[in-house]
Amino acid sequence: MTSRPRIALSLLVLLASAGAILAQSNQKDVDAVRAADEGWLKVYNARDLEKSVAFCDEQASMLAPNTPIATGKAALTEVIKADLGRPDYNIEWHADRVGVARSGDLAYTVGKTQSSFRDESGKLVSDKGKYLTIWKKQADGSWKVLFDTFSSDLPAS
Amino acid sequence: MTSRPRIALSLLVLLASAGAILAQSNQKDVDAVRAADEGWLKVYNARDLEKSVAFCDEQASMLAPNTPIATGKAALTEVIKADLGRPDYNIEWHADRVGVARSGDLAYTVGKTQSSFRDESGKLVSDKGKYLTIWKKQADGSWKVLFDTFSSDLPAS
Repeated sequence: MTSRPRIALSLLVLLASAGAILAQSNQKDVDAVRAADEGWLKVYNARDLEKSVAFCDEQASMLAPNTPIATGKAALTEVIKADLGRPDYNIEWHADRVGVARSGDLAYTVGKTQSSFRDESGKLVSDKGKYLTIWKKQADGSWKVLFDTFSSDLPAS
Repeated sequence: MTSRPRIALSLLVLLASAGAILAQSNQKDVDAVRAADEGWLKVYNARDLEKSVAFCDEQASMLAPNTPIATGKAALTEVIKADLGRPDYNIEWHADRVGVARSGDLAYTVGKTQSSFRDESGKLVSDKGKYLTIWKKQADGSWKVLFDTFSSDLPAS
């Protein structure tokens, strides 16, 4: 083998390896983002306000229906506190689509939600809907919520 | 200068250049995403259904309040058609936050919306709210909508 084909072959092997490493790292990120999405649900359902807020980036915003955007930990604490304080509050969500940028710094989860709580009269109110969360990788490698938004699938009452 | 410091210096210059190129490319992407966001508004307000749908990725989903997720061009065409068909329909939106992954393949725009249309009785209905759009860079370098979601800031009627 002359040296030119050998260099070309080496480059091909290098490129293929780089591609494989990138694909592997992307799958790792996808798994980590899915785990963060599930981890957030877990502390939410444990009604752990502090841990639920801790899943959010310092600059995180929540875009909830029928209220302006809430940005920053203080504002998000109020929003999450109101949620968790509802009598018999329960929520489930599941990410149907998870995507991570090739650079592994930005990601999204999108899926369906189901929730219920008792209203002021004690009646159980149920809802189903969807959500979209944008995740930002932190300096320590963990994934935190940068934006979270959701809405009901049911007709407006 | 001995060769070792010279190599170290060369590496530093190389790293700084790479950093500058990355920052420059990120700013270019941010500008392109902002331009796409504004371009979509333009064709929307021109009530151009075909061009409005053409801003969406093949796998795009719209997460609108009070209706399940709509995915794919056929479903999105129906959603956008219903919007654009409203009498005296007008919408404005502006991206307050634009972010692009370092790899330049995934981005978001988040901001406020204002819209109005005439209801069945001819009354002008106005709304203000917020939106979040996730953008995906296409093979040809253009940015298209991968997810779009929005909701009203006003109390539920």
